[in-house]
Amino acid sequence: MQHDTQIAATAARGRRRGRGTIARSAEPGQNLHLRVPYISRKVPTYDLVGEEALERIEATANRILAEIGIVVRDDAEAVHLYREAGAKVIDQTAESWRLTFAPGLVQEILKTAPARFTQYARNPANNVEIGGDAVVFAPAYGSPFVMDLDRGRRYGTIEDFKNFVKLAQSSPWLHHSGGTICEPTDVPVNKRHLDMVYAHMRYSDRAFLGSITAPERAADSVEMCRLLFGADFVDTHCVVMGNFNTTSPLVLDGVTTAGIRTYAAAGQGSIHLPFLLGGAVSPLTMAGAVAQCLAESMVSCALTQLVRPGAPAILGSFLSSMSLRSGSPTFGTPEPALGSLVMGQLARRLNLPLRCAGNFSTSKRPDGQAMQQAMMSMMSAVQCGAHYILHTAGFLDGLLSMSYEKFVMDCDMAGALHAYLAGMEVDEETLAFEALAQNGPGEHLFGTDHTLRHYEMAYWDSGLNDDRTFETWDEQGAEDYATRANARWKSLLDSYEAPAIDEGIDEALRDFVERRKSEEPDAWY
Amino acid sequence: MQHDTQIAATAARGRRRGRGTIARSAEPGQNLHLRVPYISRKVPTYDLVGEEALERIEATANRILAEIGIVVRDDAEAVHLYREAGAKVIDQTAESWRLTFAPGLVQEILKTAPARFTQYARNPANNVEIGGDAVVFAPAYGSPFVMDLDRGRRYGTIEDFKNFVKLAQSSPWLHHSGGTICEPTDVPVNKRHLDMVYAHMRYSDRAFLGSITAPERAADSVEMCRLLFGADFVDTHCVVMGNFNTTSPLVLDGVTTAGIRTYAAAGQGSIHLPFLLGGAVSPLTMAGAVAQCLAESMVSCALTQLVRPGAPAILGSFLSSMSLRSGSPTFGTPEPALGSLVMGQLARRLNLPLRCAGNFSTSKRPDGQAMQQAMMSMMSAVQCGAHYILHTAGFLDGLLSMSYEKFVMDCDMAGALHAYLAGMEVDEETLAFEALAQNGPGEHLFGTDHTLRHYEMAYWDSGLNDDRTFETWDEQGAEDYATRANARWKSLLDSYEAPAIDEGIDEALRDFVERRKSEEPDAWY
Repeated sequence: MQHDTQIAATAARGRRRGRGTIARSAEPGQNLHLRVPYISRKVPTYDLVGEEALERIEATANRILAEIGIVVRDDAEAVHLYREAGAKVIDQTAESWRLTFAPGLVQEILKTAPARFTQYARNPANNVEIGGDAVVFAPAYGSPFVMDLDRGRRYGTIEDFKNFVKLAQSSPWLHHSGGTICEPTDVPVNKRHLDMVYAHMRYSDRAFLGSITAPERAADSVEMCRLLFGADFVDTHCVVMGNFNTTSPLVLDGVTTAGIRTYAAAGQGSIHLPFLLGGAVSPLTMAGAVAQCLAESMVSCALTQLVRPGAPAILGSFLSSMSLRSGSPTFGTPEPALGSLVMGQLARRLNLPLRCAGNFSTSKRPDGQAMQQAMMSMMSAVQCGAHYILHTAGFLDGLLSMSYEKFVMDCDMAGALHAYLAGMEVDEETLAFEALAQNGPGEHLFGTDHTLRHYEMAYWDSGLNDDRTFETWDEQGAEDYATRANARWKSLLDSYEAPAIDEGIDEALRDFVERRKSEEPDAWY
Repeated sequence: MQHDTQIAATAARGRRRGRGTIARSAEPGQNLHLRVPYISRKVPTYDLVGEEALERIEATANRILAEIGIVVRDDAEAVHLYREAGAKVIDQTAESWRLTFAPGLVQEILKTAPARFTQYARNPANNVEIGGDAVVFAPAYGSPFVMDLDRGRRYGTIEDFKNFVKLAQSSPWLHHSGGTICEPTDVPVNKRHLDMVYAHMRYSDRAFLGSITAPERAADSVEMCRLLFGADFVDTHCVVMGNFNTTSPLVLDGVTTAGIRTYAAAGQGSIHLPFLLGGAVSPLTMAGAVAQCLAESMVSCALTQLVRPGAPAILGSFLSSMSLRSGSPTFGTPEPALGSLVMGQLARRLNLPLRCAGNFSTSKRPDGQAMQQAMMSMMSAVQCGAHYILHTAGFLDGLLSMSYEKFVMDCDMAGALHAYLAGMEVDEETLAFEALAQNGPGEHLFGTDHTLRHYEMAYWDSGLNDDRTFETWDEQGAEDYATRANARWKSLLDSYEAPAIDEGIDEALRDFVERRKSEEPDAWY
């Protein structure tokens, strides 16, 4: 009895000491020791298939490019660049050219692309590295709708867009402000890029993505960067990136290639992403989808090197499965997770940075389905060795909606992944022989020197999960995860403070936006 | 325009054809091609740390056993066996002995333990392999409470216990009936094992776990197996296993060791599990927790070999983090996930089967937190190479409650993991060059021969996720995941049919239960 009492007393001391220290240093969920401008991964990649399989996939990608080819539409300049580099035009109409590439040609062109580069942020403390062991998390991108528990689903507005930029900026677990976090559908199509880029520049001080929906909008994005960073700096530093989609299967649209050329010519970064919905625009079998993904993304990346050798380019992978019953895309399913792991292996063999996966779900609610699917997909992203992980926060509804609640849930998960990617240290201190030896068999470790040394930083401390006892949780309102997330995003927006910006620069940016808006009539399509 | 119309028509044909075929062959979520009595993994393990780190952890485990030792309480026979094998008693009282083991001694004893064995089920089609590339999923184990959306949390009853056995039996994605799925608290403590073992035998035809709470209850479990399988068969085949906990740190309780001896003497299997709550009963740092886990589990496993060389023994790992604020265990967090990966590496070096992790969560609801935590934990289980994964379905509330809703959610996730563990096939057929070549760039693949060949089996088809469009989902009731899961478990129980059993055997089992119950007065503690 005395023995048990001693254990309990020691435990209570340990707990009090722990609590006291935490109370001094941080709110719940702070995890100050894990905060970084980007993650430097300390866990190995999870390599799914062997050398022979990788070679067969690469050979198939080469065969696709050599025998089926890629169609380039509406961009004679891009075709000219590919031809100069050795591609053959095997078929053409007035507006489209089918190009083939001898095996190995595209890989040869890609040799000038950097394996790792820095994207600069207006706050230099937030510069991110892309490539190597660096991992960068960015919000989801491109949904027309937004949703929250109070108002349900509705079209996104510029107000929503700003809110999500602010929520992203508020999270220590994202590293990048992303791009089209949601479509601001209340702003004319031909002008919304100006408001979006301005919002990233004003309400965040992290790196971000520019517009890609038309070459002149890409140019506006780069021009606004020149105002923010200075023209000389922009010419020699990557300060903005464009996120470009191929038109699968095996087509590069002229708007896309012209945008890619714009970013590359300015020395800016670009992401080259096939969106492969299996059975619709790619084979249903993952090996084939991955081969096609590699082929399309490599050709798209290669264009940057033909415009400006050394321009940063990121290989992209976005593999989706399909519902057997509806034919609609499904997300967070096992097969694309496996495909992502293999894309990571292929990117490393090419020595190129990779964008891959994210927190996907088809659920229409921030519920169990949403987070199960999100976690399966996101684990594949961090395990495959992806460097830039767009869609880290917010997606629901098969990519169609940004959810305010899921955004903060995903941010919390992104925090947990910081702890995961920190890996396991194995040394005398962490092996902790002395911790067990101090009190010996049958004795609790609450009060050991080792426990007190490690108490605050040993474990990821979620800011959103509920770890209380059932009774305490029940007495205090019995809230579920979504309800807590609803309160969280509101409190984050309430307490948000915009990072300081030079007033002259801010004025120049606002003048630019105003001028460009006044130069053309509104277009709504 | 005509071109787009053609694509749409082809797509619609593809969808119709797919739907038609599915309607003929299966309900939603059937995935008949993935159904197996146990999984044969086709993905590699995810190895977190290198050889040197593993050697340091092993050296620390050896040092713990050699310098601190293990205390055995209340079991002179176990102490005798360990001493005969070379352990030294360095300290003792009337009821406890502290034993030390020279480095390598325990590993030497374990050499007779099988790397892989079969646990036989009463339906031979449900025999499971444990070890090697086999993976077995079993329900959660040991919670005093049950919960569902209708009735909230309450103490578990034998009715709940039977319900969970039936739900497990109904799921193609579990392979094993588990053990104490919930505590039937309405049955006296000294008799409930009889009702539980009978329920597994009667309402399931899969393999299961027996009782371990007292040596005589372990003996009853084995005796009932002799009635079900025949005494001769039981003597030469593993038909039941016991799930034993060490009393961490570094203690083996006499009830446990006597139970282990009972199972081993009968040639039956046993699992040897330290429950390591970091900071309380193990170091907070994962390397130390893993070293301790290895030390404790190895010594516990070794006892089986001293009783009966060749008896099946399973290494166990149950690593938990702690809430900084309350001192209570947390689950589904990143550090234990990393620890599990390393335990997998260590088990392979010992050439022993491993039980590890499961679908853990501290959430009190089947919500987003629950499934995010569950997925992080469960991914570590399947990636670390664990062979027997107890706690695959049902846990909420920090292991204190079995949730009816989460049970069916977890079963669906277990199904998805069947697809994940099937890995990626890379061959001419899956590389699918012809699928892309058939229609060429810019043309959808809905109607290609390859798509039609692979349509039904390419992707995991969840039976519980919602993949409909928002509009369809909204019109049809806008249900969240938990609500669908609530309907699902009810319909599964409604349609449950008990597997046939020989009437004579059933009668013998019921007689045994009745007789044993009549032999002692009810005990409620």
